[in-house]
Amino acid sequence: MLRSCAARLRPLLVAHGRPGGARLTSTFSFEEVTQKDHALPKPSWSKDLRLLFDQFMKKCEDGSWERLPSCSRHSVQRFQNFTKAFFSGSIPVKEEQISQAKFFPRSFEDGLGFEYAMFWSKDEKRIVCLFQGGLYLQGIPGFLHGGALVTLIDTTLGTHAMLAGGAVMTANLSINFKRPMPLCSVGVINTQLDKIEGRKLFVSCNIQSVDEKTVYTEGTGLFIKLEPGKTLV
Amino acid sequence: MLRSCAARLRPLLVAHGRPGGARLTSTFSFEEVTQKDHALPKPSWSKDLRLLFDQFMKKCEDGSWERLPSCSRHSVQRFQNFTKAFFSGSIPVKEEQISQAKFFPRSFEDGLGFEYAMFWSKDEKRIVCLFQGGLYLQGIPGFLHGGALVTLIDTTLGTHAMLAGGAVMTANLSINFKRPMPLCSVGVINTQLDKIEGRKLFVSCNIQSVDEKTVYTEGTGLFIKLEPGKTLV
Repeated sequence: MLRSCAARLRPLLVAHGRPGGARLTSTFSFEEVTQKDHALPKPSWSKDLRLLFDQFMKKCEDGSWERLPSCSRHSVQRFQNFTKAFFSGSIPVKEEQISQAKFFPRSFEDGLGFEYAMFWSKDEKRIVCLFQGGLYLQGIPGFLHGGALVTLIDTTLGTHAMLAGGAVMTANLSINFKRPMPLCSVGVINTQLDKIEGRKLFVSCNIQSVDEKTVYTEGTGLFIKLEPGKTLV
Repeated sequence: MLRSCAARLRPLLVAHGRPGGARLTSTFSFEEVTQKDHALPKPSWSKDLRLLFDQFMKKCEDGSWERLPSCSRHSVQRFQNFTKAFFSGSIPVKEEQISQAKFFPRSFEDGLGFEYAMFWSKDEKRIVCLFQGGLYLQGIPGFLHGGALVTLIDTTLGTHAMLAGGAVMTANLSINFKRPMPLCSVGVINTQLDKIEGRKLFVSCNIQSVDEKTVYTEGTGLFIKLEPGKTLV
């Protein structure tokens, strides 16, 4: 299950799927799962996050939910293929730097930044992202920076849009910050696909506390499907 | 000049100023400038960023512009004062962890994350933020993560709102991503205050390339002035 899920996500944004389809076919070289999966419990996870994670892992047992694995780096090959396919200009990154680049939400040391795991329900067509915001994500004293919350929202909504429509780019995000979220607390992001209009996918979400009594943030996202052979810039 | 500017920003979000006023009066203990100022050139800055920075430093010489200093940590005292004043619940951060917390946009090692410096024109009432997005801020291969751009937008618009209205919180951000921004490239954020309605401040900005030929992103923000003695949650 996990491997098939990993294999499905591996081509990530350089893949093109059918709307609502379960299978994505890569237009580039397919990568094997060789990197560390970060969406698994670590000593830095709080008890709350671990308990929630265990509850969702239980839901995965009958196949109604799937855990989505996550890595921190792209291969040099994918970097080159992607930029060649979708970008006509030059990128100011030296070749020896490419392998050092990290996926932003996975670029912190364990526990200091974003700790999160996503689960996908194929039947309900929604993602639940469980997360904990570490000490390096502070905005005003004691609370998470708005940009940190938006980073997780963009990542989670983007993953939902990708599962529904293949390779996508974020076109718009609109975020309402309802209550400030305390540093080091645990939150739950719930996504839903609102509609698809041609190449446009409209997805939305909220961020709640574990006990569901507090809604911290609400967000909507518009994602555009990428077209093979058509450069972005 | 720099010191007076540092002194004005030091009370940051625990201060209350008059709309459009130049002076903010802290409601809490005033902190001296003891921390490292991160908004200054470093070896990791690209030639483009350094050139732009030098141009704006020249504009500061006649007093029409001011460089805004930036630090990465709050003091334990400010943390405690702020959460006591605006937060009625408990924050799941142990006392020994408070001094380890870092301001999110300043939480990376030099060159890997956000490198930025802001300049404020009192006469034109606008901020220009010069920045470079490092290798740890990647979204799709070769480009900055949308969340990284929103983090800088929230920080810059929030600073503008604070200079115009004192202590504020972000209530809404709406971001249009026009073109993906290449990793390690240099961008310029230009802000403007659109209107003030009671406790609401509406600010907006765009992110352009250095040559002003490419608009990467446009954003609007709604910020709410905090009221002394009224808790947020």
